[in-house]
Amino acid sequence: MEKLTIIKIGGNVIDNSENLHRFLEDFTALPGNKILVHGGGKIATELSESLGIEAKMVDGRRITDIETLRIVTMVYAGLINKNMVAQLQAKGSNAIGLSGADGNVIKATKRTGTAIDYGFVGDLNEASVSITTLGALLKAGLVPVLCAITHDGDSQLLNTNADTIASSVAVAMSSLYDTQLVYCFEKKGVLRDINNEDSVVREIKADEFEGLKADGTVAGGMIPKLHNAFEAIKKGVAAVYIGKADELNELSTGNFGTKMLK
Amino acid sequence: MEKLTIIKIGGNVIDNSENLHRFLEDFTALPGNKILVHGGGKIATELSESLGIEAKMVDGRRITDIETLRIVTMVYAGLINKNMVAQLQAKGSNAIGLSGADGNVIKATKRTGTAIDYGFVGDLNEASVSITTLGALLKAGLVPVLCAITHDGDSQLLNTNADTIASSVAVAMSSLYDTQLVYCFEKKGVLRDINNEDSVVREIKADEFEGLKADGTVAGGMIPKLHNAFEAIKKGVAAVYIGKADELNELSTGNFGTKMLK
Repeated sequence: MEKLTIIKIGGNVIDNSENLHRFLEDFTALPGNKILVHGGGKIATELSESLGIEAKMVDGRRITDIETLRIVTMVYAGLINKNMVAQLQAKGSNAIGLSGADGNVIKATKRTGTAIDYGFVGDLNEASVSITTLGALLKAGLVPVLCAITHDGDSQLLNTNADTIASSVAVAMSSLYDTQLVYCFEKKGVLRDINNEDSVVREIKADEFEGLKADGTVAGGMIPKLHNAFEAIKKGVAAVYIGKADELNELSTGNFGTKMLK
Repeated sequence: MEKLTIIKIGGNVIDNSENLHRFLEDFTALPGNKILVHGGGKIATELSESLGIEAKMVDGRRITDIETLRIVTMVYAGLINKNMVAQLQAKGSNAIGLSGADGNVIKATKRTGTAIDYGFVGDLNEASVSITTLGALLKAGLVPVLCAITHDGDSQLLNTNADTIASSVAVAMSSLYDTQLVYCFEKKGVLRDINNEDSVVREIKADEFEGLKADGTVAGGMIPKLHNAFEAIKKGVAAVYIGKADELNELSTGNFGTKMLK
């Protein structure tokens, strides 16, 4: 099986043009088949504010009403995605930017039946990802760059969590490729000592997860992140990494962040 | 050689949701390989106005400054392109939305050396279109939907005339496919009598063009349109049609607009 690396980046990379530039260089240098998944960042919020559209919140949760959906479609699928693709092309990556509607690569279901009406938000299931189309693009030497907009197959675009897109794509593609999933976030990885960025736990096996929760090494927001990582591994992904985008070039040396595996 | 139909639509289709819906149904019903090229429409102007960005004009020409480029990238490549793709997917077309940066399908050159500085506007040349990537997408059963945003290969996105994109793609693809190019515009075709929509000239051969100019059948803004059509035919395109979007279903019966051929 050929190798495939799926990398997810968020606002802390996208919102800083120097960080983004360096990340895209490192991403281009990574050998083999690759897919990039990106979230939104501050630009959508700024555009909403410029247009006088207030963020709709219900019980502390952000709601994607129709105006917000228009904004995120413009910013994620248009401005951010196309500028990123143009930069990758300049660096030598044959990138192709996609929403989930393009080639029907990710079909979501509008979230319903929850206490809060989240609006135009899409959830994914096991059948959401079209491995045929993504596989054909990779075979053609292209590098898919996915934004966090999907569709429902019935003309409706949907705002979708980029972390979820990355893990769903990784799980689905693991039937065709030896797939690893990389989450870039603001820290170097899982830290033994939260105040010491040099205390990265290099490797966590699935059966060690409970122990690390019990002794407090994995706590707070890291628990769901790692839980999702081990879920992806259970469903066929070879390894999940979590680390800092500016250290991506160390992925090939095995010194990138925390590696989670079976 | 397999057949390929390239269709260009503009604001008069895009700006009216009923027209667009009907057009996309007819487009989906067209048999064989297809590529759709779309322009902008009123939405970009409306968004600019909402953001208080004034259209920059120099000597009556619209200038694409950096703010306008951001707007058209968001509206053309994001909002319009992705909504169109989602609708095509719902109708059964496996559409994939692309800017020229995606898969490097259209590499342009920033317009320079003109009396007016047009800003971030891209011009095309014979080497602009990547027939390899477009060919691979068509072979994978996908329907490319191109917006009027290209790139220069050096990270810069560029605003580019959609008519020019359509004819450049048609000329380039005619080395791989028996290619026909269809321009949808507000009239039924070239009219013998400008006041009679039923006086469509069904067919014009290249050597008849001069005569029709001389007798006034082809006049005004139609002259450059038809000139471009015959240029495309000279460079390998099998036929160019010009007609009304809501009659697209008559393309297969040969009753669509005016057909220009060798």
